Amino acid sequence: MAGRHHLFVPGPTNVPHRVLSAMHRPMEDHRSSAFPELTRGLLDGLRPIFGTADARTVIFPATGTGGWEVALTNCLEPGARVLAVRNGQFSHLFADAADRLGFVVETIDVEWGEAVPADRLASRLADDREHTIAAVLIVHNETATGVRSDVGAVRSALDDAGHPALLLVDGVSSIGSMPFELDAWRVDVAITGSQKGLMLPAGLCIACLSDRAERAALAGTGARAYFDLRPMMAQNDDGYFPYTPPLSLLFGLREVLDVLAEETLPAVYARHVRLARGVRAAVRAWGLELCARAPEAYSDTVSAVVVPAGADAREVIDVAFRRYDLSLGGGLARLAGRVYRIGHLGDLNELMLLAAIGGSEMAMLDAGIRVDPGSGVAAAQAEWRRRADAVGATGA
Amino acid sequence: MAGRHHLFVPGPTNVPHRVLSAMHRPMEDHRSSAFPELTRGLLDGLRPIFGTADARTVIFPATGTGGWEVALTNCLEPGARVLAVRNGQFSHLFADAADRLGFVVETIDVEWGEAVPADRLASRLADDREHTIAAVLIVHNETATGVRSDVGAVRSALDDAGHPALLLVDGVSSIGSMPFELDAWRVDVAITGSQKGLMLPAGLCIACLSDRAERAALAGTGARAYFDLRPMMAQNDDGYFPYTPPLSLLFGLREVLDVLAEETLPAVYARHVRLARGVRAAVRAWGLELCARAPEAYSDTVSAVVVPAGADAREVIDVAFRRYDLSLGGGLARLAGRVYRIGHLGDLNELMLLAAIGGSEMAMLDAGIRVDPGSGVAAAQAEWRRRADAVGATGA
Amino acid sequence: MAGRHHLFVPGPTNVPHRVLSAMHRPMEDHRSSAFPELTRGLLDGLRPIFGTADARTVIFPATGTGGWEVALTNCLEPGARVLAVRNGQFSHLFADAADRLGFVVETIDVEWGEAVPADRLASRLADDREHTIAAVLIVHNETATGVRSDVGAVRSALDDAGHPALLLVDGVSSIGSMPFELDAWRVDVAITGSQKGLMLPAGLCIACLSDRAERAALAGTGARAYFDLRPMMAQNDDGYFPYTPPLSLLFGLREVLDVLAEETLPAVYARHVRLARGVRAAVRAWGLELCARAPEAYSDTVSAVVVPAGADAREVIDVAFRRYDLSLGGGLARLAGRVYRIGHLGDLNELMLLAAIGGSEMAMLDAGIRVDPGSGVAAAQAEWRRRADAVGATGA
Amino acid sequence: MAGRHHLFVPGPTNVPHRVLSAMHRPMEDHRSSAFPELTRGLLDGLRPIFGTADARTVIFPATGTGGWEVALTNCLEPGARVLAVRNGQFSHLFADAADRLGFVVETIDVEWGEAVPADRLASRLADDREHTIAAVLIVHNETATGVRSDVGAVRSALDDAGHPALLLVDGVSSIGSMPFELDAWRVDVAITGSQKGLMLPAGLCIACLSDRAERAALAGTGARAYFDLRPMMAQNDDGYFPYTPPLSLLFGLREVLDVLAEETLPAVYARHVRLARGVRAAVRAWGLELCARAPEAYSDTVSAVVVPAGADAREVIDVAFRRYDLSLGGGLARLAGRVYRIGHLGDLNELMLLAAIGGSEMAMLDAGIRVDPGSGVAAAQAEWRRRADAVGATGA
Repeated sequence: MAGRHHLFVPGPTNVPHRVLSAMHRPMEDHRSSAFPELTRGLLDGLRPIFGTADARTVIFPATGTGGWEVALTNCLEPGARVLAVRNGQFSHLFADAADRLGFVVETIDVEWGEAVPADRLASRLADDREHTIAAVLIVHNETATGVRSDVGAVRSALDDAGHPALLLVDGVSSIGSMPFELDAWRVDVAITGSQKGLMLPAGLCIACLSDRAERAALAGTGARAYFDLRPMMAQNDDGYFPYTPPLSLLFGLREVLDVLAEETLPAVYARHVRLARGVRAAVRAWGLELCARAPEAYSDTVSAVVVPAGADAREVIDVAFRRYDLSLGGGLARLAGRVYRIGHLGDLNELMLLAAIGGSEMAMLDAGIRVDPGSGVAAAQAEWRRRADAVGATGA
Repeated sequence: MAGRHHLFVPGPTNVPHRVLSAMHRPMEDHRSSAFPELTRGLLDGLRPIFGTADARTVIFPATGTGGWEVALTNCLEPGARVLAVRNGQFSHLFADAADRLGFVVETIDVEWGEAVPADRLASRLADDREHTIAAVLIVHNETATGVRSDVGAVRSALDDAGHPALLLVDGVSSIGSMPFELDAWRVDVAITGSQKGLMLPAGLCIACLSDRAERAALAGTGARAYFDLRPMMAQNDDGYFPYTPPLSLLFGLREVLDVLAEETLPAVYARHVRLARGVRAAVRAWGLELCARAPEAYSDTVSAVVVPAGADAREVIDVAFRRYDLSLGGGLARLAGRVYRIGHLGDLNELMLLAAIGGSEMAMLDAGIRVDPGSGVAAAQAEWRRRADAVGATGA
Repeated sequence: MAGRHHLFVPGPTNVPHRVLSAMHRPMEDHRSSAFPELTRGLLDGLRPIFGTADARTVIFPATGTGGWEVALTNCLEPGARVLAVRNGQFSHLFADAADRLGFVVETIDVEWGEAVPADRLASRLADDREHTIAAVLIVHNETATGVRSDVGAVRSALDDAGHPALLLVDGVSSIGSMPFELDAWRVDVAITGSQKGLMLPAGLCIACLSDRAERAALAGTGARAYFDLRPMMAQNDDGYFPYTPPLSLLFGLREVLDVLAEETLPAVYARHVRLARGVRAAVRAWGLELCARAPEAYSDTVSAVVVPAGADAREVIDVAFRRYDLSLGGGLARLAGRVYRIGHLGDLNELMLLAAIGGSEMAMLDAGIRVDPGSGVAAAQAEWRRRADAVGATGA
Repeated sequence: MAGRHHLFVPGPTNVPHRVLSAMHRPMEDHRSSAFPELTRGLLDGLRPIFGTADARTVIFPATGTGGWEVALTNCLEPGARVLAVRNGQFSHLFADAADRLGFVVETIDVEWGEAVPADRLASRLADDREHTIAAVLIVHNETATGVRSDVGAVRSALDDAGHPALLLVDGVSSIGSMPFELDAWRVDVAITGSQKGLMLPAGLCIACLSDRAERAALAGTGARAYFDLRPMMAQNDDGYFPYTPPLSLLFGLREVLDVLAEETLPAVYARHVRLARGVRAAVRAWGLELCARAPEAYSDTVSAVVVPAGADAREVIDVAFRRYDLSLGGGLARLAGRVYRIGHLGDLNELMLLAAIGGSEMAMLDAGIRVDPGSGVAAAQAEWRRRADAVGATGA
């Protein structure tokens, strides 16, 4: 098909051209005396996106999924009990990984579309007088439903209960696109992958550890090899990696950190707020609902659009892909057929998103869903022409 | 600025990603025994886009502008008289080049926005009983006004007058995007550049010569060096070039010919027809006029949109560029400020163009031009959902 | 520094330019209906390099190191006993990974520089009448010493003892460069990474499983999540991956498989034999020894050169890197300072290796090691001019 | 063929990888308000390589060959008399271009292999009392013979004769690699191409004009269109070009200027001196002669090696290309078969050149020329290990 593909799944996201070019580079010796400069620049440069001044960052050749295993197998003792909140497919899988790795998993389940219920968490933690719960597992931004949760409120719940559980947070679809405050929220392990807000191909699992998490990892007795933090941290301290790192992705990450620094993180976050508002304005103009319930929980990186009863969102996605070269995200598990998702994170601007909104309209019409042609586009245009560039005031 | 730039000037056009990658290749010896395979594949592969079975094609390291000089200095005797039709800035410059190179230039001028008047040409040629006119110069698709002329009718005018003048045609913004029929129209020299329908960076001047033009070039006595066809043709016959060719562009051209062959030329032309109709539907929905007068002369590669009296098209272009990362073409010479141009040629699809239409709406609104937000987008969507893919019936 | 870097570590190897360009490609939806075609082509295309007609291949976003974990945690029950042969740093680490993952590790140790002793293995297996040993772990080509072992002889040792242990083989620095025969040798799990014979950046862990290994993985009860073969195989069967795959590396792998098919595997192997002979001729001409003892165990992908007593190989490596832009491999663990290693695998030809040999001479001279300038180069030239292209007869 | 190609023709030269990557960039509007920043940076950045503080630089979409036409048609009146020194194929072609463009060409011919004879020039100029000679044409570095001439001496000859002729210098194979001093030597027009010392693909013709040349161009009455300096200079003054510039080459040139600035020009020139000495040491060790006669005229960018009587240099070149993937330059015109040329300019380092020297040895031996295997390599190694990095003292 002629022309560019329009990629609007919530990951992998569009890789900036200059980042692709930075990855087009010959290999080099990862044991050379020149290599530590690269390693150190990356590990240092990642801290701002995690919202930390000096916590330890690590990079594994893996995906964000591997990050769950990094957090669990290093920081918890074998068979430890964890409390996982499930409000979508990815929080479900995080809990499932803990289960498969032999941990005792207790869950708090809410409707998909709702945020993490800090009050229910607080109540359960308060009940756990003997501190049998070793860690709380949450997903900052549930990619399956387009719901952002309040990590600070979860921290308060732990604090209010005086509970020492580690706070393990999946920030795969938020970090780099929405503010994350590891230090302020006292998150113990935050994990992400390279293929979302970091605008790279998949292949890097990136984690950030509090001092407490780092000490736990050093003292931990659980079985682990590939994802063992001990040799990784020891080698990183000298500027190296315990096994051959994926150089092209590291070269790309170097460029991404420069790209983010040039735009500045506040501007990146403000752009995501602005773009997300345009998408939500379009959805409202179409007369459709988001999967996310509460406006304050609307995600600024992904919107799950609920199709009318009787319609099949899979048909919208199929038509969009085949006729208009537009990739939209599907509904996962119980949401299959009920929603389609528009990823609006990473290297995007208004007119790119206008194409996605206009293309969604065409695909919905082709799939028999009655929306006014051009209505979503006009609503997004109006939102963006208002030029509400201020950061912070989101969810409107 | 984040995200992709939206490039909708009528050249340079978007280079397909795979073509950019094909150009990312180490240099090699252009005198090696392996080189002629590349040369021959290119020269042969160019013929279909000129609509010729076996005419000679040549490639100079230059731009389309250089093609005027190739045609004039090789095929005409010093001081020869030429008849040039001027219906826009590029036909004006073609005539001007002839003048600066010492030829005697006679012009037929029409309003900018009109096509080449075959009848006036016929009449002038009929008057030229002594055949003092050595060549007729026309532009197939006037990029400045978005007007396509009927080359076949010009050929008929020559034939009807029994006039032996050479027919020299600038096809810079048509060849590769719209049907061109060098054999059928008996064009003597057709020229183009690499940066329009051929979807490459500028830097190649490509020409195609009838037998008659080739003989004229071999016999010609005019002074010429760089653009001399004689050493070029002699070296090409062995698979080489008389001086170092621009290898990266040749590598890119190899890929472009593959890209065009994969889509097939009829499909490429049909796509341009379809996309152009969407743009024109948008302009109508905005209540605006095209610079091109007659529907049968509407160009399928570029549309010049006339802004309402009192408005300045330069402001639309400026706002589009600064706020929306959208490049639109400006009005040239006497059209400055009166039109902006949307290039819709090359590596494009519907949703890319939707972004340009939507962005144009925003920029016009920002510049104080009252159009209904979303109206052009909706009109283009309707046009494209009708899926009128047939080639040929254009100008609607 | 001007000019190209000369990369002669035994991994990462030089990535062919066309492969780097194939990786420079926009992302796409790994859940689209078009994606399975890519997945299937890769999984099928990998089989020939493993020497198998229809065994299952899998690709994890990880490095070759992760392959050890794939093999161990999927195919063995928790706490199983494994017999590991250690003849260099990588076989040492393979055994160590098994230990860290909770398996009972029994080792057979030989001098570094020697091959896997099939006779000692046979004897130990014959003693294990109750078949307490669940798996035998060997490294096909010990990258640290430049020693290739005879996997077929290990298979015979197992057969002769009538022992049912699984045969797990690390082929990281052999597969893709030297013949590997999974079917003929009845290897149960063979693993490799992307950054050696496959000429890609690191980031892919590639494994090939016998039917028996696949059944063991499906029935296994061990804890595993990221490296769990069950969801991987299930999703692969539909053409997908259980989590976002590293697309740029997959695009690169697609190109690599084409590159290998164009040269043909027999020609690739023969080239490695020929190039390795040149390196060994140079070492002989210098009057130095290889770490590898027996000629029949000489590796065709890496040569570890022993420096004279009193000299420090680290200085050779340091000088080569700083003065001549040449990366040589260092001696690992107990070999540190005693050897430097020349990687001669992947995308290489004679003149590239001539530069490495000539550069090694200069670096050795600079480091105070007396070799005749040009002597190694002349010996390699003579070897290559003899043009002994036949495959098979190696180790000379 | 596996591995990298070894390109040692004297142009096109190896393009640094980062420059190829810089060229892999989407197109943009060359009429945008952001464009002049690029234009100005390039035109300013080119001055140091011409050795000028503020002379005007221009860039045409053409090759170095086009530069001859730029100089001649703009700065001279039609039919003017020029005095051209011919000491090789390129100086021959420069004179030939003048002839074909209608100028009266008077030549001073010397043996190919000799430098420009400043004394003979002085004598002829002194004889030209009426100043009928409008320009002197010389080639700074005759690429066909590997001979560098003394431009300063030519300037002195003009000065001594009090002759007002313009000094037009072809610096195609010297500029960017060897010191060029437009201001000090009062050169009027110096021209080069992009594919030699500037390490880019061919496609840019770059010229630098003295004030006098610029005034001549503005006042000139000769016919010219494509290469007309008037619209070029006028548009450049605003940061634009009169027709679409070859963007990818301009992006590449931007990167090249950065590359040169990072190494610094003195270091670039010193590297060329050092590398050239190694090549000449090899030729001496082989017992062969250079085409260049006087040591003080030895070129630091290209060496033409004379093969022994009875041998055919074409066979060396053919064998090198087919067997060893090594491209050497051929003998041109009367030197065909008698010499082969090693280009040692651009993005090169010692070990790359060692491969070329070693490969030349193998090819010569294969072609029946008796040289000691490894002798040239050893001589170059010795030369480079001496580490004579000082600039200036060349020709040894």
